[in-house]
Amino acid sequence: MKTNNSNRRNFLQKASLGTLAALTMPQVIVSSFASENAKSKKISLKADDVILFQGDSITDAGRVRTETAFNNQKALGGGYSFLATASLLNNHPGKRLKIYNKGISGNKVYQLAERWDADALELKPNVLSILIGVNDYWHFRNKKYDGTIETYKNDYKALIERTLKALPDVKLIIGEPFSIIGKSVDASWAPALKPYQEAARNIADTFGAAFIPYQKVFDNALKVAPGDYWAPDGVHPSIAGAQLMANAWREVISG
Amino acid sequence: MKTNNSNRRNFLQKASLGTLAALTMPQVIVSSFASENAKSKKISLKADDVILFQGDSITDAGRVRTETAFNNQKALGGGYSFLATASLLNNHPGKRLKIYNKGISGNKVYQLAERWDADALELKPNVLSILIGVNDYWHFRNKKYDGTIETYKNDYKALIERTLKALPDVKLIIGEPFSIIGKSVDASWAPALKPYQEAARNIADTFGAAFIPYQKVFDNALKVAPGDYWAPDGVHPSIAGAQLMANAWREVISG
Repeated sequence: MKTNNSNRRNFLQKASLGTLAALTMPQVIVSSFASENAKSKKISLKADDVILFQGDSITDAGRVRTETAFNNQKALGGGYSFLATASLLNNHPGKRLKIYNKGISGNKVYQLAERWDADALELKPNVLSILIGVNDYWHFRNKKYDGTIETYKNDYKALIERTLKALPDVKLIIGEPFSIIGKSVDASWAPALKPYQEAARNIADTFGAAFIPYQKVFDNALKVAPGDYWAPDGVHPSIAGAQLMANAWREVISG
Repeated sequence: MKTNNSNRRNFLQKASLGTLAALTMPQVIVSSFASENAKSKKISLKADDVILFQGDSITDAGRVRTETAFNNQKALGGGYSFLATASLLNNHPGKRLKIYNKGISGNKVYQLAERWDADALELKPNVLSILIGVNDYWHFRNKKYDGTIETYKNDYKALIERTLKALPDVKLIIGEPFSIIGKSVDASWAPALKPYQEAARNIADTFGAAFIPYQKVFDNALKVAPGDYWAPDGVHPSIAGAQLMANAWREVISG
């Protein structure tokens, strides 16, 4: 390899903002919650930041769990986490970001808590993005889990308090659990999931986290294409839906 | 599923351009060859277009070859093809695009030709994107292959002629083979690869294909971060490099 760390540092010092600007151009994307969220909390990135995506199957998205390196496609899976990572790494070439995905399919909040030391705190993330809750509702609904909305609230609050105790400076991003009508989701879901969505938003507000209103993101997308285009089963996004989420995620990053 | 094909059609008719515009916002990305390529050939997409990515390991990017469905993440792999697909599907929700990746690691032009009926012509792509050539040079260089630059030119020209005979209306995108200095690439590569790059560009010009000058894309990116950030071995892009390629690929799509 011709570029060692020392060369890289010199290099990055030499790379001027002017050069970077000359390499940029606008691209129009189908977005999400642009105007209404314009005033919401934003996250700024610093050099050498560690960014961690945590959550359930939507975050997991087929990642290879034996791959543990940061910025590794197999370790990041094929969902919104990977798409957001690709955009971040492309847009912040000078920041040496280290990005991990530790989402696990099927997880509810208590299951995040069980693996939180190894899969979150020990990675010492500077930015921690969490999307959790659809299984807390879904598995309660189908009687595979006896936790209620109160369990969700209490477990989630405790998880964030524990996180902030270990990592007082961590910047938090909390995603809203969401559903649309699809193969696994009927019209009774929306009102039943709503308390979970409100709980996630309240936790974000309470702890100063950036909040991503994914329900609004998908509801807006339904104005231009039907649900099976964005998330065929109503819970797991298609590629188009994953890009929609990645775009929304990117909007809370200010830099 | 609540949305069947009939609903979808009605739906798309109702989705107005106004709604779509309200959902878009600009995003700044590290780009590539914006100004110099502004006047080059663009590809417009139509409803129901089939788009096929073909090439070698850079296109393959770990795709699962047993997955054959269109718009499927595992079938598309984790490289520029997938990233471009995610952007396309997100940006063109009304077009019902069907996108495939049939790149295979290690391929040279003659190996594309061997599998061209099954892996290209029979899919009847409306848009066919090809990136091939780095192995034609690399395997010649390391004496694993006796084809020369003349072989590359002749094989590539024959492949395109065969393609246009079978699919006279196909829109072609030809990517420039590229390298940067890295673990597998030293300074002797650039002048030796240049005739292959010129051949690819000439073929694009001859047959009216859109051309993506990936060498320029990577050379420009080297102004803002060192080579190991974009392609550690000098040939295979990192996630950041794959996004760079996807951005460049997207720039030849006019819609």
